[in-house]
Amino acid sequence: MIISAQSIIFGDSKTPPLSDGAMLVHNSRIIEIGDARQLIANNPGEEVHHYPQGTLLPGLIDMHIHIGTDGAPDAGGFSDYMWAICAYSLLQKAFSVGVTTVRDVGSRDGLATTLRQAVHRGYVELPRIITCNLGICMTGGHGASTYETATECDGEWEIRKAIRSNHKKGADWIKILTSEALRGEEYTQSELDAAVDECHRMGKLCAAHAGYQPSVSMCVKAGFDTIEHGTFMTIPEAQYLLAHDRTWVPTIIAFAYIADQVKAGYLYQNSEASSSYFLLAEEQYANNFKSLFDTGVRTTTGTDQVLWQAPVYPVAKECAYMVRYGITPLQAIEAATKNGAEALRLGEHLGQVKPGYIADLIVTEGNPALDISALEQVTATYQSGKLVYKK
Amino acid sequence: MIISAQSIIFGDSKTPPLSDGAMLVHNSRIIEIGDARQLIANNPGEEVHHYPQGTLLPGLIDMHIHIGTDGAPDAGGFSDYMWAICAYSLLQKAFSVGVTTVRDVGSRDGLATTLRQAVHRGYVELPRIITCNLGICMTGGHGASTYETATECDGEWEIRKAIRSNHKKGADWIKILTSEALRGEEYTQSELDAAVDECHRMGKLCAAHAGYQPSVSMCVKAGFDTIEHGTFMTIPEAQYLLAHDRTWVPTIIAFAYIADQVKAGYLYQNSEASSSYFLLAEEQYANNFKSLFDTGVRTTTGTDQVLWQAPVYPVAKECAYMVRYGITPLQAIEAATKNGAEALRLGEHLGQVKPGYIADLIVTEGNPALDISALEQVTATYQSGKLVYKK
Amino acid sequence: MIISAQSIIFGDSKTPPLSDGAMLVHNSRIIEIGDARQLIANNPGEEVHHYPQGTLLPGLIDMHIHIGTDGAPDAGGFSDYMWAICAYSLLQKAFSVGVTTVRDVGSRDGLATTLRQAVHRGYVELPRIITCNLGICMTGGHGASTYETATECDGEWEIRKAIRSNHKKGADWIKILTSEALRGEEYTQSELDAAVDECHRMGKLCAAHAGYQPSVSMCVKAGFDTIEHGTFMTIPEAQYLLAHDRTWVPTIIAFAYIADQVKAGYLYQNSEASSSYFLLAEEQYANNFKSLFDTGVRTTTGTDQVLWQAPVYPVAKECAYMVRYGITPLQAIEAATKNGAEALRLGEHLGQVKPGYIADLIVTEGNPALDISALEQVTATYQSGKLVYKK
Amino acid sequence: MIISAQSIIFGDSKTPPLSDGAMLVHNSRIIEIGDARQLIANNPGEEVHHYPQGTLLPGLIDMHIHIGTDGAPDAGGFSDYMWAICAYSLLQKAFSVGVTTVRDVGSRDGLATTLRQAVHRGYVELPRIITCNLGICMTGGHGASTYETATECDGEWEIRKAIRSNHKKGADWIKILTSEALRGEEYTQSELDAAVDECHRMGKLCAAHAGYQPSVSMCVKAGFDTIEHGTFMTIPEAQYLLAHDRTWVPTIIAFAYIADQVKAGYLYQNSEASSSYFLLAEEQYANNFKSLFDTGVRTTTGTDQVLWQAPVYPVAKECAYMVRYGITPLQAIEAATKNGAEALRLGEHLGQVKPGYIADLIVTEGNPALDISALEQVTATYQSGKLVYKK
Repeated sequence: MIISAQSIIFGDSKTPPLSDGAMLVHNSRIIEIGDARQLIANNPGEEVHHYPQGTLLPGLIDMHIHIGTDGAPDAGGFSDYMWAICAYSLLQKAFSVGVTTVRDVGSRDGLATTLRQAVHRGYVELPRIITCNLGICMTGGHGASTYETATECDGEWEIRKAIRSNHKKGADWIKILTSEALRGEEYTQSELDAAVDECHRMGKLCAAHAGYQPSVSMCVKAGFDTIEHGTFMTIPEAQYLLAHDRTWVPTIIAFAYIADQVKAGYLYQNSEASSSYFLLAEEQYANNFKSLFDTGVRTTTGTDQVLWQAPVYPVAKECAYMVRYGITPLQAIEAATKNGAEALRLGEHLGQVKPGYIADLIVTEGNPALDISALEQVTATYQSGKLVYKK
Repeated sequence: MIISAQSIIFGDSKTPPLSDGAMLVHNSRIIEIGDARQLIANNPGEEVHHYPQGTLLPGLIDMHIHIGTDGAPDAGGFSDYMWAICAYSLLQKAFSVGVTTVRDVGSRDGLATTLRQAVHRGYVELPRIITCNLGICMTGGHGASTYETATECDGEWEIRKAIRSNHKKGADWIKILTSEALRGEEYTQSELDAAVDECHRMGKLCAAHAGYQPSVSMCVKAGFDTIEHGTFMTIPEAQYLLAHDRTWVPTIIAFAYIADQVKAGYLYQNSEASSSYFLLAEEQYANNFKSLFDTGVRTTTGTDQVLWQAPVYPVAKECAYMVRYGITPLQAIEAATKNGAEALRLGEHLGQVKPGYIADLIVTEGNPALDISALEQVTATYQSGKLVYKK
Repeated sequence: MIISAQSIIFGDSKTPPLSDGAMLVHNSRIIEIGDARQLIANNPGEEVHHYPQGTLLPGLIDMHIHIGTDGAPDAGGFSDYMWAICAYSLLQKAFSVGVTTVRDVGSRDGLATTLRQAVHRGYVELPRIITCNLGICMTGGHGASTYETATECDGEWEIRKAIRSNHKKGADWIKILTSEALRGEEYTQSELDAAVDECHRMGKLCAAHAGYQPSVSMCVKAGFDTIEHGTFMTIPEAQYLLAHDRTWVPTIIAFAYIADQVKAGYLYQNSEASSSYFLLAEEQYANNFKSLFDTGVRTTTGTDQVLWQAPVYPVAKECAYMVRYGITPLQAIEAATKNGAEALRLGEHLGQVKPGYIADLIVTEGNPALDISALEQVTATYQSGKLVYKK
Repeated sequence: MIISAQSIIFGDSKTPPLSDGAMLVHNSRIIEIGDARQLIANNPGEEVHHYPQGTLLPGLIDMHIHIGTDGAPDAGGFSDYMWAICAYSLLQKAFSVGVTTVRDVGSRDGLATTLRQAVHRGYVELPRIITCNLGICMTGGHGASTYETATECDGEWEIRKAIRSNHKKGADWIKILTSEALRGEEYTQSELDAAVDECHRMGKLCAAHAGYQPSVSMCVKAGFDTIEHGTFMTIPEAQYLLAHDRTWVPTIIAFAYIADQVKAGYLYQNSEASSSYFLLAEEQYANNFKSLFDTGVRTTTGTDQVLWQAPVYPVAKECAYMVRYGITPLQAIEAATKNGAEALRLGEHLGQVKPGYIADLIVTEGNPALDISALEQVTATYQSGKLVYKK
């Protein structure tokens, strides 16, 4: 199959977009990229998908979702049947917003792995799922009360046991939550150190939910592979992440969306304090995102939408925020594609338009390199070279 | 909206099809039926769906399915999450085969009602679900070992309690299973009588799985509203059902499909005896369907596919078997539409193309009134006036 | 294979033994019986087992055992592992005492069926097992406290449920216990009637433990297929059994063995009353066995050994008691072979030396037709034509 | 009793075999060894077992079995009854292959100790059982999913508690599993250290399943008494074991047998990775066994057969592999007898033909000192001086 478009964005921001290009896709992989006319001429009989007004780019990666969590007011009474259908319902919308890979950073025990098996069985079609299975938090910590999406563990050995248990159940990553239930740190440094040690001992990557200080600095020090939110992260911390080949998942939109609701009168978790935290956090991102980004730390896109009726996986909007805060559209797209893949240690296979790479691709109506808002106008989505969405 | 087609079949076999007709649909109901040109002329500005080569008829009703039962060899190890996704995966195929209403005659506790709620919440789109929730069988009876789709009850009071419990959980019908685990009766007459009494006392309809004798005659005598299978039902029993406004759900295809597998060497339930029963049953339908139908008993279509990778809801094929066994295509379509709706006591709203009726409609490529196999070529499906499937 | 012996006893007491006879066995069945020299001459090359001093007769049938019940004083603390090994240990001794078929009339849930499956899997070799699985008794009735070998059920529906449950778990027969916990009846007539109705409705045979009156007469009236013990059974009751083709399993030795212990000073169940019952029962058999037998009622051998270190399946001794009480050795052997098989409704396949019958055979050292005590000197046992024991 | 044979092998490889020797056995112990004629002459009236063509040697010791694990595809559904019978069925074959002592390194809770009690009660005859009862592994570690033969423990204190619990339940040894579920270490060094400390504090010996690195080196460092498999063990590690009087149980055949299956197309655990590990492991043994053995480390025989229908306790084959890889037949026999006994700290009583030693003896048809394959032709087995198997 050949896919041709007005413009091709490669994922790597250093490579300029290609006009009137096309790519040849065989057996789920990109084989060749080049001038559309030539490629078509060289491959007679090959099926061609033309997007003469479209821009073709790698599928977007949402580094921070919670599978099944749509915040329905009565979700506390859901049966497992309903959780599965709810999770499916949200995930199947991913293709329509250009998301082909999600990293689930904490959901009900077995939910994400079951959905992945359901894809393998051919029951449903869904984006590529990387999962942490159950998150891990301290007793009463952040995430402890959210629909059994995290397990409460205290002390080195309960944490190590929970990591082993998640591994056994098929988790790809491990997620530790350690700020914002308290305003301050949650886990002790020794618990965080043990968590990272256990993960790395077992060859697993680990993500830390840390927005507030000193949690962010403790997690940076402990050695987590990704810092989730990092709302109050400092420049030296970002530099330290860069130096150690680690990743930042700012999730600007998670805060901006709720901040907008709060400004419109919504009381988050029925709490004045919680609500105002989002205003503060939004301001923090607005002021500091650019300087943190400019350290060179690997920055990726995560959306973390947990409110009822919130937009589903708005990676495009996250990119728009990044652009608004000072980076170029191509840099934002790189964050949403190449950077995500590299953070997932899948950078050799995913996240770029490049020969040999998996053909997870999307087509947008306009050109997001010129106007990042075009990223919200997805007209087609391919997963492993298969058309899975067409507007 | 106006839907026009080359031919309209009304569901009622006494009404001849209408050529070049159309219908006006507003707010989920059929408003008017008439000549296509006139209707369009009389309603300027109305959106028109043209099917110039198509035949329009009421959506098909599958009176006998088990939600989620796809017979996957490892289904015994499914989590509730997987059951829900598996059930969804099968049900969402209904529209593509023209089925807009299903009656679930026994499935895991809460599965069918949860799927229905998931539709109401807007998570997914599925056919209209009428459900029995858990089936009821005697200890060790038919259905007792099928993935917890039936509850084992013995004696009048356990049965009455199970009926009340199913009612509490949202069951629309009650399903009793009483033959074929033993070759002979399972429940005693007094248990069957109690079951029917409790159902009717509570204003609930009740279905009996009874294929073998004396179970069929015991169920006919007890007063069940539908006899499922009735493989060895006699002419007087069918006449008795007619006299009491009751219904037969022969499920020919359930037996014919497995009989075909058996002829090809498959050993049903690893048992020679079980396998040969299907050969015997198929013969029984071939020999007796027409005479039973000719008694005038209300005959409907149920498919009961439980083997792994069996066709999904093949109501069209069930109609084809009926035609092969001697009735007209219009009679078979009536069985699959008007008769089903009447059996469900929804005959005032569903199952016919008639002003005031709910616009559950399908379009087929050829004309099934001329060739019943055209019923297998569904090109569009409407549920409550909304296009939910287009080939 | 040819098996030759000095004498062959046929099982049927009307057929006189054959001297210097032999039989040809192929594929587990007896093919031909005749003069040893001729049979060997006619079948050159056939393997021959010579028992020049031996008597060949059908394998013995113990109609009344409780699998695993060896009465070890600490059996209450057995794990399921130990129960299985204990049961195996007792059963594997059967071949050495000439027993090739046992009917288990009540043992721990699943124990007998598991042992039977273990034979089918090839793990072990054991006699043919016919089982009732769990016995059924009233709350506090006979059997209620014996190592969970019976389930306490009261009222028609609990009993019917327990029968259905035993059926589901693979029971071949159903066992009801109804005397001797009380001195008098235990179950009411309506409960016994329901039990028999449910069994026969389901095509199952049923056995009643009834030694005392009025339990015996109630069970005879209810229609049980075998009366176990029947210690105080009357002549008219035996005649009634005969008239209805039913069976008596006196189990003389069960009482005589304990009576001997009691005479030697043992206090059965630490109770004077229980102990003296055995003296009374022994006397009863001594006085009445012959007249009951002479009614023509089908009489069979059961041993019911439950005391610790009691002999294992002493069918030979049961025969000896019958001879002592007045019948001929050939009649006693018939009771232990042909009659047992007929009571089990396996009379067309088992229990006789006859062409076409299953080759379950034993060889004794002397000739039990002349001296019944020779039945205790088993030198070889064949099951389905396979040598399974050789002294 | 006197047992005489053409040749006697003593177990100690430094002692040359004795021709035409005999031994006097009284009350389960060997009293005297000498020239057959003289011994018989000196002990008139003593029962003599002559094996004029046979070789007499100590009974073989299988240091590595899992009781009851026959890998039947449906073993997951076994009841405890079936586990017990299955375990018995396998163990009772030990005598026929010359095995008189087994060390069970992890089986279902209570299974091995129950079988041992069943022997003491006289229910069955089985080889001497040394058991670890339940193995101990980390959550999700090696052994975690094998029919409940290991308990998942994490952290020093859960491990110590599990050791104490196994001790309470009658375990003789403790088994820790720590490699191959992950390719790399499983337990941390501190957990392994705690395990060994707890065992030795309680006077218990401990075995470590460790095939891969760094697990092997971590276990050697921690101080386990036996290293099971040690597939990737280094020369310095073997030297360290020797210096500390510890033992290696290579279990070559466990890998070679599965490697053979894999070469024939079998996919171990349905996994390409698992399958190829066995090819790699087999090569490892072929290349390194001799040099590791030559360090002088105490080397013993374990068979670890877990595949369905694998040979039962093939210690003779393990010896054959050792000879193929470069050691002498007498050295291999020493590994299977004297070395095993010493590793079990029973070296003063078992494992040699020596006055005062327990008369666990076997007779082979040929002479395994000349041709190790003769070890597979066992014609008689004695346990504690009692003939328990005769071909």
